[in-house]
Amino acid sequence: MGLKGIRTALKVDLNKPAREQKGLHNRWHPDVPSHGTIANNEVVKIECLDWTGGQIQNNDSADDVRDVDLTQIHYLSGPFDVETAEPGDVLLVEIQDVQPFEDQPWGFTGIFTPENGGGFLDEIYPKAAKAIWDFEGIFCSSRHIPHVRFAGLIHPGILGCAPSPEVLAEWNRREGELIATNTTGREVAKPPEPRNVHGGSADEELNVKIGREGARTIPGRPEHGGNCDIKNLSRGSKVYLPVHVPGAKFSVGDLHFSQGDGEISFCGAIEMAGVITLKFTVIKDGMAKMAMKSPIFRPGPVEPQFGPGRYLTFEGFSVDEKGKQHYLDATIAYRQTCLRVIEYLRRYGYDDYQIYLLLSCAPVQGHIAGLVDIPNACTTLGVPMDIFDFDIRPETDAVKMDMGSCAFASINS
Amino acid sequence: MGLKGIRTALKVDLNKPAREQKGLHNRWHPDVPSHGTIANNEVVKIECLDWTGGQIQNNDSADDVRDVDLTQIHYLSGPFDVETAEPGDVLLVEIQDVQPFEDQPWGFTGIFTPENGGGFLDEIYPKAAKAIWDFEGIFCSSRHIPHVRFAGLIHPGILGCAPSPEVLAEWNRREGELIATNTTGREVAKPPEPRNVHGGSADEELNVKIGREGARTIPGRPEHGGNCDIKNLSRGSKVYLPVHVPGAKFSVGDLHFSQGDGEISFCGAIEMAGVITLKFTVIKDGMAKMAMKSPIFRPGPVEPQFGPGRYLTFEGFSVDEKGKQHYLDATIAYRQTCLRVIEYLRRYGYDDYQIYLLLSCAPVQGHIAGLVDIPNACTTLGVPMDIFDFDIRPETDAVKMDMGSCAFASINS
Amino acid sequence: MGLKGIRTALKVDLNKPAREQKGLHNRWHPDVPSHGTIANNEVVKIECLDWTGGQIQNNDSADDVRDVDLTQIHYLSGPFDVETAEPGDVLLVEIQDVQPFEDQPWGFTGIFTPENGGGFLDEIYPKAAKAIWDFEGIFCSSRHIPHVRFAGLIHPGILGCAPSPEVLAEWNRREGELIATNTTGREVAKPPEPRNVHGGSADEELNVKIGREGARTIPGRPEHGGNCDIKNLSRGSKVYLPVHVPGAKFSVGDLHFSQGDGEISFCGAIEMAGVITLKFTVIKDGMAKMAMKSPIFRPGPVEPQFGPGRYLTFEGFSVDEKGKQHYLDATIAYRQTCLRVIEYLRRYGYDDYQIYLLLSCAPVQGHIAGLVDIPNACTTLGVPMDIFDFDIRPETDAVKMDMGSCAFASINS
Amino acid sequence: MGLKGIRTALKVDLNKPAREQKGLHNRWHPDVPSHGTIANNEVVKIECLDWTGGQIQNNDSADDVRDVDLTQIHYLSGPFDVETAEPGDVLLVEIQDVQPFEDQPWGFTGIFTPENGGGFLDEIYPKAAKAIWDFEGIFCSSRHIPHVRFAGLIHPGILGCAPSPEVLAEWNRREGELIATNTTGREVAKPPEPRNVHGGSADEELNVKIGREGARTIPGRPEHGGNCDIKNLSRGSKVYLPVHVPGAKFSVGDLHFSQGDGEISFCGAIEMAGVITLKFTVIKDGMAKMAMKSPIFRPGPVEPQFGPGRYLTFEGFSVDEKGKQHYLDATIAYRQTCLRVIEYLRRYGYDDYQIYLLLSCAPVQGHIAGLVDIPNACTTLGVPMDIFDFDIRPETDAVKMDMGSCAFASINS
Repeated sequence: MGLKGIRTALKVDLNKPAREQKGLHNRWHPDVPSHGTIANNEVVKIECLDWTGGQIQNNDSADDVRDVDLTQIHYLSGPFDVETAEPGDVLLVEIQDVQPFEDQPWGFTGIFTPENGGGFLDEIYPKAAKAIWDFEGIFCSSRHIPHVRFAGLIHPGILGCAPSPEVLAEWNRREGELIATNTTGREVAKPPEPRNVHGGSADEELNVKIGREGARTIPGRPEHGGNCDIKNLSRGSKVYLPVHVPGAKFSVGDLHFSQGDGEISFCGAIEMAGVITLKFTVIKDGMAKMAMKSPIFRPGPVEPQFGPGRYLTFEGFSVDEKGKQHYLDATIAYRQTCLRVIEYLRRYGYDDYQIYLLLSCAPVQGHIAGLVDIPNACTTLGVPMDIFDFDIRPETDAVKMDMGSCAFASINS
Repeated sequence: MGLKGIRTALKVDLNKPAREQKGLHNRWHPDVPSHGTIANNEVVKIECLDWTGGQIQNNDSADDVRDVDLTQIHYLSGPFDVETAEPGDVLLVEIQDVQPFEDQPWGFTGIFTPENGGGFLDEIYPKAAKAIWDFEGIFCSSRHIPHVRFAGLIHPGILGCAPSPEVLAEWNRREGELIATNTTGREVAKPPEPRNVHGGSADEELNVKIGREGARTIPGRPEHGGNCDIKNLSRGSKVYLPVHVPGAKFSVGDLHFSQGDGEISFCGAIEMAGVITLKFTVIKDGMAKMAMKSPIFRPGPVEPQFGPGRYLTFEGFSVDEKGKQHYLDATIAYRQTCLRVIEYLRRYGYDDYQIYLLLSCAPVQGHIAGLVDIPNACTTLGVPMDIFDFDIRPETDAVKMDMGSCAFASINS
Repeated sequence: MGLKGIRTALKVDLNKPAREQKGLHNRWHPDVPSHGTIANNEVVKIECLDWTGGQIQNNDSADDVRDVDLTQIHYLSGPFDVETAEPGDVLLVEIQDVQPFEDQPWGFTGIFTPENGGGFLDEIYPKAAKAIWDFEGIFCSSRHIPHVRFAGLIHPGILGCAPSPEVLAEWNRREGELIATNTTGREVAKPPEPRNVHGGSADEELNVKIGREGARTIPGRPEHGGNCDIKNLSRGSKVYLPVHVPGAKFSVGDLHFSQGDGEISFCGAIEMAGVITLKFTVIKDGMAKMAMKSPIFRPGPVEPQFGPGRYLTFEGFSVDEKGKQHYLDATIAYRQTCLRVIEYLRRYGYDDYQIYLLLSCAPVQGHIAGLVDIPNACTTLGVPMDIFDFDIRPETDAVKMDMGSCAFASINS
Repeated sequence: MGLKGIRTALKVDLNKPAREQKGLHNRWHPDVPSHGTIANNEVVKIECLDWTGGQIQNNDSADDVRDVDLTQIHYLSGPFDVETAEPGDVLLVEIQDVQPFEDQPWGFTGIFTPENGGGFLDEIYPKAAKAIWDFEGIFCSSRHIPHVRFAGLIHPGILGCAPSPEVLAEWNRREGELIATNTTGREVAKPPEPRNVHGGSADEELNVKIGREGARTIPGRPEHGGNCDIKNLSRGSKVYLPVHVPGAKFSVGDLHFSQGDGEISFCGAIEMAGVITLKFTVIKDGMAKMAMKSPIFRPGPVEPQFGPGRYLTFEGFSVDEKGKQHYLDATIAYRQTCLRVIEYLRRYGYDDYQIYLLLSCAPVQGHIAGLVDIPNACTTLGVPMDIFDFDIRPETDAVKMDMGSCAFASINS
């Protein structure tokens, strides 16, 4: 009678290379062996490494960000079989809590170079940079971005069930087609990559197969969610996930202490290692019942609330910085909106990289405002004024302060 | 001592053709004559027609939507000179209230054909359709979309200051370039249109000039906002607008009783005629002080609040309905997100056009979730569950109901 | 097809004495003649005078407050018969909107002398005082309390159905008993008062009876709500009211542009004349079905939201200002809490009467925190910091400003 | 560089009697020896026992509740000296997090008999009863109150600085006076109690003195807060506490996973042992600067938000259940409001004790609505409908369910 504590379905070892831990894997593939079974309606804790598997240090140089090996990431925890789950079911995952490790109360936000990962504004801000965030309970602050402090909207960046062979083949088909027809001069998608594949407890032969066929953990995909980077999947959320293989083979990772809509600097969340508490419930035949093609969720009731009137909101339109008119392009519009914020906050003494980092990880609200008045898409970006310890209202004159610097790389490759 | 009522800066006549009313105009041009002067710090009421200038009727046919003459719209109220405003200033406009006319408590939402206006999903839903909404205080409901009722997030779809000749020329240049290079087979922008131009109190010669050069009121534009269709510009908002001409020449119109993020069906808001109460304050040299290129705003404190946990939120990614992978395209992702909602709500007996209309006008939250995990942009669309009078939670079985029909056109052209 | 405007069930005349208007009455009595019938599920507008029936002027003297004739108030609109309503039913009243009259955009807050009405802090603040509030859309501000501005949480102070003869008799019994045993030296309840009774369209004989038996409109009472002064009965609220007589005989009045929890200065709300839009639905046998003895309500979704972290909250305990310990007395505790706020805000230059007025009418949150740790009740009072245009956070030094004065009476009787 | 984890200023031992742990104490007295020093601006973790020091078991009998030894409680953690704090300063305590112990994820709510502790409704509900709550991340549920589940508004019930000798003398004077003049027939306050006093590391002589003079930890008191039981002192709150002795001698304890306004069943919160993370900042001369007599606080931004329209709110007035009219008595009014909720929820099959427990610990909102309309105080109690997994709206017929039972004592003493 009474709980003795919640079972931990996976413990990770922060002092051991991620690739040597059998409960982790870094590709989506139906054949990655299960790392244990979870009962229907069970609550478990699952430990997770940060998305790089420990490649980033708590220091003042961004050399580590510049040199991150992206063939390795993300190390996900799992996959776990959930009892009774079958293809066509929906797996209801309730996110009951997310916490950093008690003895590692810090995280990081990074700006990647265009050569290695890139980011939403990398043509304008091509240097590698980094901010370290210290956690004080539910709050975080950074020596690299002074005068800012906020409560984290803590969440996992990645969660989802394994693809079936058919779903995986479709992913490889359509992303391969994009790569094949690419004329942009930049990397447009990440094909299967045999280097540094880690198939959990797969034997060598299976590991090779997973490397050859397995989908990368970048990006999120409609059939299962995966790396969706939705900041609102925080404490208390209920996520409804399509099941494609027997047992569901659920994986989770890439924990974020906080993130802004868009996660614009790519490694834009406050990335951390930690523990997630989840409850699993199988809804039989859920995909047909809910007409579900992509995940659905309900946020929890405890999101930080600033009040609608405490957001300073910026508008952006699909005219790029060279004056070129684009057609209803919300991506371009959101890029412009981000630039408007940078121009505004720069007046207080921040350098642009600090703001770029901040916009990526603070709980900013990025909305699609209008998408039908040709040719301009309009997007908005709401910055909660209360994350600053000074007054950023437009009617108050901006006073330049000494804002120090974020961490940069010694040489930007 | 004490107020005797707020001055009405413009009265409109609902029974007189819009084109005959001198306080209205339907193009953006620096030379549209001012319709009176507003003092710095003054509060005024301004009456507005609906965006079509009265072309839509409260009936059960969408023939009027199908046949709307888009060369005429939008009829804006103004322009008004604001005392002391000069180019380079910022005009702070506080939206103190928006109300429908007391004796006309209804509005409409329309789906336009691809041949005339189109919409975000017009390839899939090409028919003209309409829903009439009845206003009961702050709430609205529609005989064309049963079992739905919600409080309006009332706001103006269009507000802004007149462009300078230079700004206008730039608009015409870049939009003209888009038109000139268009290979999409569909209309991509709206060039100046001499037909049906209404320059307010302009004489005939000036009217011709305005028709030749004046920018259309579709779309919004970064330099002044204009037709930005931001649902959160509601009661209590403070909007900071760039001033480009002496006196600012402020105009407003296109009142919406409610709108969802994206306004996806084009005439997607609940369109209405009514009265807006505004306070005007000039911030001298504000554009330089705030480093402002596009409008900024702060929402008011009274937005309808459902609680974060009362949204059912759908995910969408930049893979289109034919399985084609697009590169970080938030517009495609949002289209997919909308389709996911339609598939979900269809199970209750709504037809797709009803849902398309509903998504356009109910206060749905459209967020840009992730924009950096190549190649998939991820967007979310949160539907407030409390706008329905039945339970739409995924764990409750969907029961099909008789949902009647929205209004369709007799023949879809 | 379609609405032509909502029916106005009662128009009031601001230029005619309240006592001469047949749609008004100022006592609760089952025999007050009905002023028309409302259909089940009908939406109507009802005009209301301010609670004094026009005794207060928009000027800078509180003589009118000092001299208010309390035998006359409140002039309520109604009563209205609602079709099909019978004793034992519940009348669901949805408050769809509340608005001040367009040509009378102002209201007042008053402090009454102990000799005439009194107030929560009248032993400490015995002078008559007044603040006039100007309405600008949803906002209000006062020349008598500078540097403050907020959105109104607009609501009716009084609404309810008529008592049955039995209910009325019980009211007179129990309140009479309190009066009969009163040893406090102050007025403790208001017995029936024949002077200035206004029974609507009652003939003289009936009017006399109503004066002899009818319950005063001060206070609210458990059996029907009445003068409950609940600030959250604002736009969008659904109120469930017990029905005691055939037709329900519903009345409403005492409109408030805003009020704080407790309405502490007695005439503490921002009192106004205006229009309320209501929808009426009869729930048959509702009292038994809901086990209802007193009204229940659900607030609407549009209350001003400041965010939980934007309240500065004060604690108070049931030890009075003379150091006397009281036993779990929440009334004493709340009085102390109010005094703590006055002491705090006084530092900015406000005089105590200004703060007393402000606490009465601004949307302050008064909570019962703890009621069981003998002998101290603990209450809290949360002041939304964003109603001030200066920074009231405790970590910011208070700077005294010239705050002018509220209106006082020439001689305090 | 970088944090290695936050220092734990006090560890408690759950397997050792509370009275043997030197970092705990159970009286307020200036001479309780300090248990270590905290730097100005330091963040520390402090472990706390539950308020009974471990007297309650996770089982299905309320015998332990019935027999709790109230001379022992509360065991507080501390006192801690804060560097530089002097009498007259204000100690700003930021509550950065509160967590239950990981291996003890449960808590309890109790109803005490009138003979031992009592409660707000003990005349009506005199039996000892108990509910055990299981914690699943941020949520809790109870086998003793089925169909209910909610996110905890986690907070400390007690925090404060030690009284000076003068303050302590005043407490003893005024509470002694209340006891001396008590004619109610029930215990009205708790005088100093030598039995079971635990003065932390005090030697025997000092312990005797503390027992003779020290103030009990029931109730909260205006001069320092203490046992204030304010549910909103949750994560992210900033509390401003008066300092009365050198070093402040801060203590904290009585952690609550959740509580409703009023904590009506006395042991009404969900009581638990756990860890609190606090940041301490000394504001020199703060009491004079802030005109502070009692604590002030700002809630944090992460309180569970249900949306204003998701509360079902009950009204209560100061007429007691025997029909007696009381004069502006908010305590009586709140008692009536609680009874109205019990009558309402009973219809679903809950017994009254279950509802009494639930109202005590769920995040219900207890407001003082009106306090000036003689003779009725009006209070409201808002129940968040979303804590139930069934529909409690009034328009839905109540269906009785099998709700099991809370834990009762075998014999109620």
